[in-house]
Amino acid sequence: MSKIIKPLYDRVLVKRSESEQTSAGGIIIPDTAQEKTQAGAVIMVGEGKLLNDGTIRPLHVKKGDEILFGKYSGTEVKGNGEEYLILREDEILGVFEK
Amino acid sequence: MSKIIKPLYDRVLVKRSESEQTSAGGIIIPDTAQEKTQAGAVIMVGEGKLLNDGTIRPLHVKKGDEILFGKYSGTEVKGNGEEYLILREDEILGVFEK
Amino acid sequence: MSKIIKPLYDRVLVKRSESEQTSAGGIIIPDTAQEKTQAGAVIMVGEGKLLNDGTIRPLHVKKGDEILFGKYSGTEVKGNGEEYLILREDEILGVFEK
Amino acid sequence: MSKIIKPLYDRVLVKRSESEQTSAGGIIIPDTAQEKTQAGAVIMVGEGKLLNDGTIRPLHVKKGDEILFGKYSGTEVKGNGEEYLILREDEILGVFEK
Amino acid sequence: MSKIIKPLYDRVLVKRSESEQTSAGGIIIPDTAQEKTQAGAVIMVGEGKLLNDGTIRPLHVKKGDEILFGKYSGTEVKGNGEEYLILREDEILGVFEK
Amino acid sequence: MSKIIKPLYDRVLVKRSESEQTSAGGIIIPDTAQEKTQAGAVIMVGEGKLLNDGTIRPLHVKKGDEILFGKYSGTEVKGNGEEYLILREDEILGVFEK
Amino acid sequence: MSKIIKPLYDRVLVKRSESEQTSAGGIIIPDTAQEKTQAGAVIMVGEGKLLNDGTIRPLHVKKGDEILFGKYSGTEVKGNGEEYLILREDEILGVFEK
Repeated sequence: MSKIIKPLYDRVLVKRSESEQTSAGGIIIPDTAQEKTQAGAVIMVGEGKLLNDGTIRPLHVKKGDEILFGKYSGTEVKGNGEEYLILREDEILGVFEK
Repeated sequence: MSKIIKPLYDRVLVKRSESEQTSAGGIIIPDTAQEKTQAGAVIMVGEGKLLNDGTIRPLHVKKGDEILFGKYSGTEVKGNGEEYLILREDEILGVFEK
Repeated sequence: MSKIIKPLYDRVLVKRSESEQTSAGGIIIPDTAQEKTQAGAVIMVGEGKLLNDGTIRPLHVKKGDEILFGKYSGTEVKGNGEEYLILREDEILGVFEK
Repeated sequence: MSKIIKPLYDRVLVKRSESEQTSAGGIIIPDTAQEKTQAGAVIMVGEGKLLNDGTIRPLHVKKGDEILFGKYSGTEVKGNGEEYLILREDEILGVFEK
Repeated sequence: MSKIIKPLYDRVLVKRSESEQTSAGGIIIPDTAQEKTQAGAVIMVGEGKLLNDGTIRPLHVKKGDEILFGKYSGTEVKGNGEEYLILREDEILGVFEK
Repeated sequence: MSKIIKPLYDRVLVKRSESEQTSAGGIIIPDTAQEKTQAGAVIMVGEGKLLNDGTIRPLHVKKGDEILFGKYSGTEVKGNGEEYLILREDEILGVFEK
Repeated sequence: MSKIIKPLYDRVLVKRSESEQTSAGGIIIPDTAQEKTQAGAVIMVGEGKLLNDGTIRPLHVKKGDEILFGKYSGTEVKGNGEEYLILREDEILGVFEK
C-alpha cells in the first residue's frame, strides 16, 4: 500500500501533466523534447499559509485544480513509478478554468 | 476547445503586442529586430494581492488595459500558436491612457 | 495620435533634460560626452505608493516638477522620437526648487 | 547513557529513513547509490516558532510523524552510531499520512 | 541664477569639506592624496523618512550640521563648479558637536 | 583577575566542549581531527532578543545549558588560554536534555 | 580645539584598546602581529535605535563601557593621532563586566 504526503502549510502536491495532454490547445508551455511541461494537477494541499501573526490562511487552490507553474519551481518527488512535485502556492502562476 | 488560465493572486495574463502596433506613436519601447516589445494587453487578472494580514487587495489593472512592462519581466507561456506572459502587477510600469 | 502612459502606483514618467538645459548653473550632474544627464521633468505620476496595509499614499512629486535621479535608475521608454524614463519615486534624489 | 537533544524553537530532530524503508511504495525520493533519502521520522520537536511579537506558535509536526524534506535541508548530527538531522519546520515539505 | 535641490524624504544635500578644513583636529578621516574626505556640511534636508504606515518622521540632522559619512555613501552631484553629495540620513555616521 | 563578557541582547557566551566529552554518546557531531566540535556549555546569556516594537524577550537558553550549534556559527573569542564563542540564540540548534 | 562626533541613532563611537591592555587576561581576541584587537571603550553613543513605528529606543551600552566587537565591524575614523571606530550597537558582541 502506498503512503500519501500531506503538504505542510502553503505547499501543494502536484502531479505533472503528460506531454500529450499539455499540447491540447490551452495556454500552456511548449513541450520541447528537452523540457518538462509546467502544467499539472493538484493532488493535495496544505492547511494554509502561516501568516506573521501566527494564524493560518487557507490556500486558494484546491484538490483537482489544473495549474501552471514556473519551470524551476518546487521540489521533485517520485513514488509508485510516477513523478510528483511539491510547490509553495506562491509559485503557482495560474489555474486553468474549467 | 482551449483552456484559459486564471492568474493567481496579484498576477495578470498578458498578450504581447505585435511589432506593427507598438510603432504606432505612443510612448513605447523601440522594436529592434532582436528585442521583443514590452507592451501588451491584459487578458485576465488575478483576484488581488495577498497582504501580510491575509486579506486580498484587488488589482489596479483590469481586463482590456494596454500596459507597458520591463524587458525581462514575467514568465512566458504559449498556447493556440500565440505567446502570452504572466506578470505580477508590481512588474507593470504603466497603463496606456485611452 | 500618441498614447500616453499612466504610471502604476509609485512610479512616475519623466522626460530627460536636454544637455544644454542641464548646464544652466543649478546643482546638476556634469554632462560628459558619454553620460546622459540625470535631470528631468515629471510628465505624469502614479496614484501613489501601495502600503503594506493595502492603502495608497499619494506621491510627493507632481506633474511639472524638475527632478534629479541616479544614473542607473528606472526603465527607459521611447516614443514620438523622444526619450522617457519610468522611475519609482524612491529613486528620485530631489526636486529642483523654483 | 546517551543524551538527547531538545531542538530550539521551530526546529525538529529527525531520524533519516533507511534505504529499504524509503522504497516501500510511498511518494518518496528515489534512493540512488549517491543520494541520501529525504524521508525520516520526527524524534523530538522544539516548543514552537518565535513570532515577530515575541509569542511562540506550536509546531504542526509532532513526535512520530514521518516527513519528507529537501535534499540539502538542515544540519546533520551523529550519535550512538546513527545519523540524525536538525531541521526548521519550514524546511519540511510534507507529512506522510497514516 | 542657480537652482537648488530639495532632497526627497530622508535624503540630505551635503557640501563636502575642503581638505584643509578636515585636518583641523577633530575626529575625522585622514585625507590621503587619493581619498576624498568624508566630512561635510548639510545644505538642505528632506521632509523626513517615510515610515511603513505612510507617515513622515522628520530627520534628526538639520541645515548647517557638520557630519561624517562613509566613503562610498550617497550620490555625487555637481553644480556651480562645486561638488555636492546626496545621502540618506541612515548613511550618516555622526554629527560634529559644536 | 579576568574580565567576563556579558553578551548583548540575544547573544550567548559559550565554552566549547573538549573532544573527549563530545564522544560520550550523546547526539553530537563526530570529532574528526580537522573539525572542531559543535557542542558547548552556555557561560552567560544576554538580556534577551530586541523585538521590532522595542521590547526585550528573554532568551530560552540559560547559564549551564549544554547546547549544539552549527559548524560555522558565531564569533570566536579567546581568554585565559581557553576558547569561547559568542552566538546569537537563533544559531543554537538544540539543548541537551539532562 | 578638537571636535567630537555625536553618533547618529543606534551608532556608537569607540576607542580601540591598545594591544597591551587586551592581553590582560579577560576573554578577548588574541592580538597577533597582523590583527587589530576587537576590544575598545565606548566614547559616545547615539540617542537610540529608530524603530519601525518612528520611535527611538535608547541604547543598552553607555559611555565608558568596555566592549567586544567583530573583526570587520564598523567604520574607522581617525583624529588627534588616534584611531576610533563607529559601530551600530547590533554589531557589539558583548560588554566586559566590571
